[in-house]
Parts: sequence; structure tokens; C-alpha cells
Amino acid sequence: MKFPATALALLGLAAPALAADIPYPDGYRNWRHVKSMVIQPGHALFDAFGGIHHLYANDKSLQGYETGQFPDASVIVFDLLDASAADHAITEGARKVVGVMHKDAKKFAATGGWGFEGFGGGDRDKRVVGKNAATACFACHAAQKDHDYVFSSARD
Amino acid sequence: MKFPATALALLGLAAPALAADIPYPDGYRNWRHVKSMVIQPGHALFDAFGGIHHLYANDKSLQGYETGQFPDASVIVFDLLDASAADHAITEGARKVVGVMHKDAKKFAATGGWGFEGFGGGDRDKRVVGKNAATACFACHAAQKDHDYVFSSARD
Repeated sequence: MKFPATALALLGLAAPALAADIPYPDGYRNWRHVKSMVIQPGHALFDAFGGIHHLYANDKSLQGYETGQFPDASVIVFDLLDASAADHAITEGARKVVGVMHKDAKKFAATGGWGFEGFGGGDRDKRVVGKNAATACFACHAAQKDHDYVFSSARD
Repeated sequence: MKFPATALALLGLAAPALAADIPYPDGYRNWRHVKSMVIQPGHALFDAFGGIHHLYANDKSLQGYETGQFPDASVIVFDLLDASAADHAITEGARKVVGVMHKDAKKFAATGGWGFEGFGGGDRDKRVVGKNAATACFACHAAQKDHDYVFSSARD
């Protein structure tokens, strides 16, 4: 037997997240830049995350970086760009994906209170995770339970 | 004959910039992150700028990135961190220097309207450029005259 998500919500049950539950993170390029990292060829995650990525945090999530517990409406963006290595330098290229973690403890209870989405090429209309968040995202993030499922830490 | 800088200022002449003319850029970590780059061993600038650097722009300078002409009070920060390459990834380390470009067309007329300073290790009390801006900074930036002496360009 299958209930529509709205019915499940009325019953107070955690429904699988709908893609549309996670909005494109408008204005994230003006959020706090948390940190960056380069993932190079040969890395186990290169196929998925190769390139240079920057993490951006909205105001709500800054509380989470401080306390280790992220309040609802926390949003963290994983902004992945191509990286070109040439002449002993690595420079940024085209955007590959805008990954989003969006906290709503009730709505996303099945995945640690976080909804996950990716926007291919940064295009708000190209959702690349959709209903696969549990396997495509949370499977790895689950290991970070002690930091509320977030990998990155804040630095000065 | 030599005038003190204050006397030159009273006369309306461009005095060589004093280090103290360029304040430490308080709060720059909350400014717009413009772009990033990694400079690796073997690069001609490795000794000076090896590591991963991030550029941050204050609100005034965002106008400059759009128009190519930066208004007075534009400040751009070059935030240089150590970069560790291991296991096919490059991660950030300790801060090496906080470089600053501060626009004041009159005060810094001798160096393209920009004052330059560096804060060693990010320490506001460790000024590493001081009176050497012309040779330590502007000698290279002069080549960027067509972009108001700024190397970086904005991206989305």
C-alpha cells in the first residue's frame, strides 16, 4: 500500500524527500567561503568529485560549524569546478556541479535530517541526485554522524 | 631636500605610502570569494606565493570587477594558505600571508592608485611589504594596467 507524501506528512511519518523539497541555493556565491580542496586523478572519488571544490555556508549553518549541531534551514553548498593542471599551477575551469545539503530534521529524517541535491553544471533545472540521496550522498555522509553528517570543518 | 609625508600631503603631493595607510582587512573572510588557484613547486612564483590562494573582494571592489575600474576604498585580499598534496588530493594548511590591495587613487598614485601590504601568517602586526610595495608588488601588477592593475577576474 502506498500513501502520497502529503498523506505521510499528515501522519507524521518521514516520507522520502521529493527533489523539489531542496531549493536551488540562490545567492550562495555571496555566502561565507568555508574552505576548499582539490581532488586529483587517482583519488577514489575522482570520478564523482574530481576538480577543485569550494564549500559555502549560509548564516544558519555557521551556527552548526561552531556547535557541531546544525539547525533547521542550514544550507551548505559544495561548489565543484573543473581544475586544470598546467605549468605548475592549478586553475579553475567550468562548474561541474553545485551540491547542496539542506537541513530539515523532520522532512529528511531518513538521511540524518539532511536533504541532498546536486545541480548539474550549476543549472537549477538539472537535478542530478533526486531520489537517490540515500545511496548517492548519505551512504558516505553517515560516517560523519558525530559532526551532524558534515565533512567540512570551519577554519579561520 | 626631504619633506615629511604629512607635509607632502598638505602640499597635495603624492607621498610614498606609509605602511599604516593600509589597514588590516577586518572581516574579509565574510567578503565575496572571487576565485582560487594553486601554485605548485616548480612555478616561477612558488617561493613567494606557493600554496593555495583565495581572493576576496569587498563590496566596493565588486564594482571594479564589473566595470574594470576600481573605485576608491576597493579592497582585494589575496589569502594564501599552505597546500599539502597527498593521496591524490590537495588540502589547505596554515595561513602564509594575507595580501591586500587597497585603492586610494590619490594616496597611492605612485603605484597605480593601489596600496599594497602583506600580513605574515595573517597576523595584523606582521607587515611584510611596508615601503617595498613598488618593487615587491607593483612591479608585477603594472602589467595589468588595462584591468586597473588587478590580475583576477570575476567569475560566477
